[in-house]
Amino acid sequence: MIRVTVWNEGRHEKSNEEIGKLYPEGMHGAIAKHLKTQDDMEVCTATLDEPDHGLTDEVLNNTDVMTWWGHMAHHEVKDEIVEKLYNRVLDGMGLICMHSAHFSKIFRKLMGTTCNLKWREIGEKERLWVVEPGHPIAEGIGEYIELENTEMYGERFDIPEPDTLVFVSWFQGGEVFRSGCCYHRNKGKIFYFRPGHETYPIYYNEEVLKVIVNAIRWAAPVNGPKIEFGNKQPLENISE
Amino acid sequence: MIRVTVWNEGRHEKSNEEIGKLYPEGMHGAIAKHLKTQDDMEVCTATLDEPDHGLTDEVLNNTDVMTWWGHMAHHEVKDEIVEKLYNRVLDGMGLICMHSAHFSKIFRKLMGTTCNLKWREIGEKERLWVVEPGHPIAEGIGEYIELENTEMYGERFDIPEPDTLVFVSWFQGGEVFRSGCCYHRNKGKIFYFRPGHETYPIYYNEEVLKVIVNAIRWAAPVNGPKIEFGNKQPLENISE
Amino acid sequence: MIRVTVWNEGRHEKSNEEIGKLYPEGMHGAIAKHLKTQDDMEVCTATLDEPDHGLTDEVLNNTDVMTWWGHMAHHEVKDEIVEKLYNRVLDGMGLICMHSAHFSKIFRKLMGTTCNLKWREIGEKERLWVVEPGHPIAEGIGEYIELENTEMYGERFDIPEPDTLVFVSWFQGGEVFRSGCCYHRNKGKIFYFRPGHETYPIYYNEEVLKVIVNAIRWAAPVNGPKIEFGNKQPLENISE
Amino acid sequence: MIRVTVWNEGRHEKSNEEIGKLYPEGMHGAIAKHLKTQDDMEVCTATLDEPDHGLTDEVLNNTDVMTWWGHMAHHEVKDEIVEKLYNRVLDGMGLICMHSAHFSKIFRKLMGTTCNLKWREIGEKERLWVVEPGHPIAEGIGEYIELENTEMYGERFDIPEPDTLVFVSWFQGGEVFRSGCCYHRNKGKIFYFRPGHETYPIYYNEEVLKVIVNAIRWAAPVNGPKIEFGNKQPLENISE
Repeated sequence: MIRVTVWNEGRHEKSNEEIGKLYPEGMHGAIAKHLKTQDDMEVCTATLDEPDHGLTDEVLNNTDVMTWWGHMAHHEVKDEIVEKLYNRVLDGMGLICMHSAHFSKIFRKLMGTTCNLKWREIGEKERLWVVEPGHPIAEGIGEYIELENTEMYGERFDIPEPDTLVFVSWFQGGEVFRSGCCYHRNKGKIFYFRPGHETYPIYYNEEVLKVIVNAIRWAAPVNGPKIEFGNKQPLENISE
Repeated sequence: MIRVTVWNEGRHEKSNEEIGKLYPEGMHGAIAKHLKTQDDMEVCTATLDEPDHGLTDEVLNNTDVMTWWGHMAHHEVKDEIVEKLYNRVLDGMGLICMHSAHFSKIFRKLMGTTCNLKWREIGEKERLWVVEPGHPIAEGIGEYIELENTEMYGERFDIPEPDTLVFVSWFQGGEVFRSGCCYHRNKGKIFYFRPGHETYPIYYNEEVLKVIVNAIRWAAPVNGPKIEFGNKQPLENISE
Repeated sequence: MIRVTVWNEGRHEKSNEEIGKLYPEGMHGAIAKHLKTQDDMEVCTATLDEPDHGLTDEVLNNTDVMTWWGHMAHHEVKDEIVEKLYNRVLDGMGLICMHSAHFSKIFRKLMGTTCNLKWREIGEKERLWVVEPGHPIAEGIGEYIELENTEMYGERFDIPEPDTLVFVSWFQGGEVFRSGCCYHRNKGKIFYFRPGHETYPIYYNEEVLKVIVNAIRWAAPVNGPKIEFGNKQPLENISE
Repeated sequence: MIRVTVWNEGRHEKSNEEIGKLYPEGMHGAIAKHLKTQDDMEVCTATLDEPDHGLTDEVLNNTDVMTWWGHMAHHEVKDEIVEKLYNRVLDGMGLICMHSAHFSKIFRKLMGTTCNLKWREIGEKERLWVVEPGHPIAEGIGEYIELENTEMYGERFDIPEPDTLVFVSWFQGGEVFRSGCCYHRNKGKIFYFRPGHETYPIYYNEEVLKVIVNAIRWAAPVNGPKIEFGNKQPLENISE
C-alpha cells in the first residue's frame, strides 16, 4: 500500500464562493476521493489551517507520497515544516507538486531556482502532449490531454532541466510549457504537473486524475541503499 | 504478469568445459531459474542456435522484456532478427543487455554509437556503487555490490549519456565504468548492466540477480499513448 | 578557424521552379553565403549529385562541422558515405541536421530511433521558445523566434531524450515540437534544428541564421582525450 | 574578456603553517596567477575576511565567472551575500565550485540537495576519468588525470543528476565519485570540480589548472534572451 497525503492550502475554496461550489470538500477532497478508489493507496488529507498545517511528525513519517497544492499563502507555510518536508523527500518520500505549487517553498528549495514563469488567466485551451511515451506516468493516456479552459503557464519556466520530461503543453494564446517534469533528489522523487487552476473543474478530469495516480505510483519510495555519509575507512588495503 | 524471454548466445557453455560445468543449463538456464521464482514473471529462454535464434514472431510478440547475453558470435545474429527486435523495443518491449552484450548488434543499433570500451581479464575485484538511490533498479541493494573476481570494463565507454545512471563501477586495476545505464527509445526501455563474465559465477550472485529482476520490472511495457506519425489535419481552426 | 561544409541534397531547387527562384544558388548557397560573413569560419558546400555527394575523404577529413539538409532523396545517399560521416562524427566532427534531415540516414543512425514525427504543410505559424537561456546556441536570440509561415512538425518526435533541449516550438494548428536538440555521440556533437522548409524563405531569416552560426560554434571539435579502446594492462599493481 | 573573480575562504593558509608554505599567497593567489596567463581573462581575487567577503555589488556586477573554494567557515559566509551570489548566477554569472565547496551555502542552495558525501584523508591516489570526451571542459586533457596524493570523496554524492557528467574519479581505497559535474540554473552555468585539498599541491597541477581554465570558458555568460516573467497578454488572437 502507498500511503498518500493530499495537501492543500484550502483557502480559495473558503474565500471564493464559486470555487467553494466547484470543490465543496476542497480540491484536496476531490483528489483524495479519486485516490481512494485505487486498491494500492491509503489516503488522507491535510490543509494549511490545521495545526502544523496538518503535517505532524506522525503524518510525515507515515506518508509515502505527498501531493501539494498551494497558491495564495505559500509564505504562510512555516519554515520548520518545510525543513521537515525537505528532509522527508531526501529520505525517499515522493512529492507531486501541482499547478501553482511551482512557487511553493518546498518545490523551490528542492529545485534550487526561482521556478518563475509566464501566466495569463483568460480561460484558454491547453493541450498537454506526451513526449516520453514509455514512461509510467503516461500509462493509459492518449497522445495528448486537452483542457478546454485553463490558466496559461508559459516558458521560460525557471527550473533545472528535468531528469525526464513527460509532457509539453501547447496554449491557445501562443506559448509552450514543460508541464510534466520528473526529478530525483537523493532518495526522493518529485513530479511537477501543471494543470490545476482553482476556478476550472480540472480535478474532475479523468485523464488529469489518471496522471496523478500514475505519478504517485512512480514517486513511491524504493527500498534503496541505506546511505552513510562522512569519514570512512578504506575498503581496500592501501600500502605504498 | 511480465512475460520474460531470457536470450543467450549459449556457445561458451558448449565450447569450454569449465564454463559448461559452471552453467550446466547455460547462463540463460541459471537466470531463468531465478526469474521463475518471481510471482509476477512468466519466463522462457531462447538461444542463438535454435531456428531464428529462438525468436520467432510468436515469441517476440509475446515478450514483454528480453534479457540479452552474447559475446563471441554477435555477428551470427541475423540482421532480419535484429530488425524485428529493434521494432519490438521501439514499440515498448523492454531490453536488458548484460555484460558483453554491449557489442551486440541490437544494443549498438539502439545506442547509435560503437559501444566500445577498455577491458582486461585477470579476475580482479569490481565494486558497483549505487549513484541514484531512489531508482527502482536499486531496490533492495546496499550501497555497493562487490564482485570478488571479474573481468574489467573501463571508460571511455562509447555510449550516449544515459537517461539515468544507476551504477558506477570501481575496478581494482585502476578504472571506473558506468555499469548500470537506463535509456528510453521510443516506447521501449533499455537497461545495460555490466556484470556477467562467463567464467565467473556472476549469475549465481544474489544481488546481481536482484538487479536483473528490478530492471525487468522497470523495463516492462507501459500502456502509453498509441502514437500516430505522418500527415495530420490541424487540431485548431486556422484562419488568417 | 572552423572549417564548415554546408551539405544540401539540392534537388528541390532544380525540380521546382518556385523554390529555384527563392534559392537561386540552392539552400546551401544561401546558408554558405551567410556563414562566410563570420570571421571564424571557412566555408565550402557539397551536394548530393556531385561525385561521392561532394564528400571525398579529403573534404571529410578537413571538415570541422557539417550542416545537413536533405528531404526527397535520403535513400540516394550511399551507405559507404554515411559510414564515413558516422565515423567522422564519432571522431569529433560536429553535425547540424536541419528540418527534414530528421529522416536522413546519418541522423537516424546516430540517434538509434526512427526519428519519425507528425507533419502538415499549410503554411501556419511557428514560434520557437528558448527553454535553456544560458546555452551558447541561444546567444543573441530573444525569448522566441517567430516564423510566420512554415511546415508543421509535431510530437511525438521519436528521438532519444536530448542531452540538452534548447528550443520548444508552438504551432498554430495545435502541436508542440522539441525543435532545438543537442546530443553528444562519442567525441562528436550534434544539433538538430527544426526550421528550414524549402518553400519558405527560412534561410534568409536572421535569427535562424544566428542559431545556425551559434550551433556550428558549439559543435566545433574539442581537442579532447585520444581514446584507446581494447585490452589494457592494469594501472595499479594487483596482488593478493 | 572574461572577468574572473577567484574567491577563497583563505583561512587554512593562515592557521596552518604547512599550508601557508604550500600556498604563500593563498590558494586564490595560486589559481589567479595561472588564470592571469590566459589572454582572454581578467582576474581578481576576494576572500572571506575582507569586508563583504570581498564581494561588493561592484565586484559582483563585474564578474562573469566566479571560482569558489571554502571549507572550515562555510557558515561564516553571510546569507545576504549568498543571496546576491545566487541572483547573479541565475542572471548568468558562471560559478566553479571546487573541492570542499560542495558544502558551501551557494552550491547547496543552487543544487537543492545536501551535497553530502563520503570522505577520507590518508593521501591516497585519485584518477579522474573523462567520460564525455567531446565536452569543452575536456579540452587538452588526456584519458585521465592522476593525482598521486589526495583526500578521498566518495559516492553516494547527494547532488541532482548532472546535466552533463564530464569526470568520474577512481580512488585507491575503493570508492568512485562523480568529480566533474555541469549544471544549468536559469541563465547561469555551474561546474563542480572535485580536486583541491588544501594540504596537497593540487593547484599547481597543470591538468587541474587546465580544467579550471576550460570550465571558466564554458561557464562564461551568454548573451541569451532577456526573460520576462509574470502576467502576459496573448500572442495570438483568441476568439471563440
